Amino acid sequence: MAERGSGRNRPRNAFYAQSGGVSAVINASACGVIETARRHRGRIGKVYAGRHGILGALHEDLIDTGKESVADIRALRHTPGGAFGSARYKLAGIDKNLAEYTRLIEVFKAHDIGYFFYNGGNDSMDTAQKVAEIGRKLGYPLTCIGIPKTVDNDLPITDCCPGFGSAAKYVAVSTREAALDIASMARTSTKVFVLEVMGRHAGWIAAAAGLAARSSADAPHLILFPEVAFDRQKVLAKVQATVERRGFCVIVVSEGVRDADGRFLAEGGTRDAFGHAQLGGVGPLVAEMTRAALGYKFHWAVADYLQRSARHIVSAVDVEQAYAVGRAAVEFALAGRNAVLPVIVRKSSSPYRWTIGEAPLAAIANKEKKVPRSFISADGFGITAACRRYLAPLIGGEDYPPYRGGLPDYVELKGVAVPKRLKRPFVL
Amino acid sequence: MAERGSGRNRPRNAFYAQSGGVSAVINASACGVIETARRHRGRIGKVYAGRHGILGALHEDLIDTGKESVADIRALRHTPGGAFGSARYKLAGIDKNLAEYTRLIEVFKAHDIGYFFYNGGNDSMDTAQKVAEIGRKLGYPLTCIGIPKTVDNDLPITDCCPGFGSAAKYVAVSTREAALDIASMARTSTKVFVLEVMGRHAGWIAAAAGLAARSSADAPHLILFPEVAFDRQKVLAKVQATVERRGFCVIVVSEGVRDADGRFLAEGGTRDAFGHAQLGGVGPLVAEMTRAALGYKFHWAVADYLQRSARHIVSAVDVEQAYAVGRAAVEFALAGRNAVLPVIVRKSSSPYRWTIGEAPLAAIANKEKKVPRSFISADGFGITAACRRYLAPLIGGEDYPPYRGGLPDYVELKGVAVPKRLKRPFVL
Repeated sequence: MAERGSGRNRPRNAFYAQSGGVSAVINASACGVIETARRHRGRIGKVYAGRHGILGALHEDLIDTGKESVADIRALRHTPGGAFGSARYKLAGIDKNLAEYTRLIEVFKAHDIGYFFYNGGNDSMDTAQKVAEIGRKLGYPLTCIGIPKTVDNDLPITDCCPGFGSAAKYVAVSTREAALDIASMARTSTKVFVLEVMGRHAGWIAAAAGLAARSSADAPHLILFPEVAFDRQKVLAKVQATVERRGFCVIVVSEGVRDADGRFLAEGGTRDAFGHAQLGGVGPLVAEMTRAALGYKFHWAVADYLQRSARHIVSAVDVEQAYAVGRAAVEFALAGRNAVLPVIVRKSSSPYRWTIGEAPLAAIANKEKKVPRSFISADGFGITAACRRYLAPLIGGEDYPPYRGGLPDYVELKGVAVPKRLKRPFVL
Repeated sequence: MAERGSGRNRPRNAFYAQSGGVSAVINASACGVIETARRHRGRIGKVYAGRHGILGALHEDLIDTGKESVADIRALRHTPGGAFGSARYKLAGIDKNLAEYTRLIEVFKAHDIGYFFYNGGNDSMDTAQKVAEIGRKLGYPLTCIGIPKTVDNDLPITDCCPGFGSAAKYVAVSTREAALDIASMARTSTKVFVLEVMGRHAGWIAAAAGLAARSSADAPHLILFPEVAFDRQKVLAKVQATVERRGFCVIVVSEGVRDADGRFLAEGGTRDAFGHAQLGGVGPLVAEMTRAALGYKFHWAVADYLQRSARHIVSAVDVEQAYAVGRAAVEFALAGRNAVLPVIVRKSSSPYRWTIGEAPLAAIANKEKKVPRSFISADGFGITAACRRYLAPLIGGEDYPPYRGGLPDYVELKGVAVPKRLKRPFVL
């Protein structure tokens, strides 16, 4: 690396990027990375963040986190969304798209970046793995460390994914609260309430709604998982039995619920006879189905982004874990590890004890962990005691943001750009 | 009242009922009523609550709140929904439905009820007013006091309505949070986010979303009020300009938004060519409209019951006011007032100071307060400084419920029934 000349004894810089759907706590991971790097200034130079994730690297659009105050970096811990911008952008295979990988290395080289921290889900771990490979192939020394994140909780190996616990808490709390509302009104008004939650392929968030119930009589009365084929007759029978017995029925449905042929339920209903797109998601679809068949007055809610950005009701455990994987990523890099990521290892459920472990990026990349059958009750509509034991600790503890004027005081970073060093812009 | 015989010197009992849509703080009003009555045992005997509101009175289905512990009554202050059950049931005019009014008096007489506390919106104040009249006509001495409640904030005279401040805070917080999410993702993903909120006739809740913005550049970029006729071209132009300028656009739409002919927008889209009901609300409708015309990727959320049951993120001011109107109702009754209700009187906005005033039921009944034009910005898509001054104090302060195992610890009352004294059941 003689070409870096005078920089030879200077510590190399780090690049950090957020990838994919953001969460209420992904910035807590960023906080963990930046604060930890700042504690090791002798070994890590600047921390540059990609503006809009990996696109920031490709476009040489880097944010100098060194321009942010200690207080503002600390405030990332309580600020939702992706403070540097995220991107839904998956790099193709190296053979198919060598130009992008070469460009990444070119940008890293220009800014003396020796550490690559990539904060995302399974797609992103795949990208990080490939960046590690290309660095090796091109003879550019680069330490690539993943940082797990996804509200969907579908990464393998790690016991849970930072971001999930908070979405889970939001959904469990909201289900408990809405159920009290419906219970009040059911005598003369709404009998069926449907809450649609995220989880395109795995029903972890839907499962978390089950935590709202203190007993088997409590809401939610039906959880519809992507892992269980939707059976219209069975669902309707259960709804009817619940309304007759309890006076009302609360259904939590995962956006990814599918029929026996594996088609998304929402997709089935997305076009009418004229080919016009239907407007509703699967929540309104299920609600309307119960009305058409059983005549019950219904209401439905679709939480959408609210459930993954609700920093005001995060799980304290989740915040702590999100910070911890950020910190551990830097510590792994300093320990000379490469092409790995920190994962959450559960030591015990009650009392809840966890620690940070290490896994190779290749083991996480492009794999999905679904809700196992042993976590879903026999009738397919609820969670088992084993599932409850797994989920309960993950929503543990409250960690409120500071408020000003009745609203959470979230930080907006300055986002100062690092001066460009390359002449050539990159066209995606 | 000689027929009450030995009860002559016993204090008369009170009846309390919840009416219409519940809120995150209506139980705080119940708490105010019951705790205050308990402090005046020499003058108010038992407090009976109607199970499912006024239906409980008609069916002689009364709950003896005296069987609930001090701690459980206190816990009502932090429990959402309607702890005794509410009802959407409006008594018709006395001339049209004398039987129901007569029945009420019959039940009140049987249980020596001398105080009628009715906790609801403008319809309920009308009912309370009529009950006061019929009591007078039938020579049954009855003190009728209303207790204001509605998340819609549409009651006249009172500066604001208990329940509104918390829904407002939920919507403002959620808008700020979701906007951070979208800002992170907009470069490669969602460009338009639509949040549908409650408010069938008045746009107060939608207006509250405007508090999320710290500057004119901030989300929400468009608020669609029921008070402003929906102008498709103008909306689309503003959405396009916002996406081009800011990279994304956040829209908050009131469920009650109407076109220039006064038709609900959501209603217009509720049936397809076959007469099938459309599933979506106005939120998905507006989102789809922007996609169809401008091609933007969108997401939408419908908060529905979540916004009015979210006790976890209530306004401390709202909780205090909800409790205060419950307490004041009992104090008014003890002071010999009749056919009145306590209202919130604003003394100053900054610092926020308020007190309890008194208004006749007749002045509130069946009237609606809409968002005045002076509170809506010139282009019809935002709130003015005057609106902000009005709204800001109402979301002030946090008042978190206690948590157990990561979830709010809401109380479930025993709800012990008062033994029936009448032979005849009542058929509605």
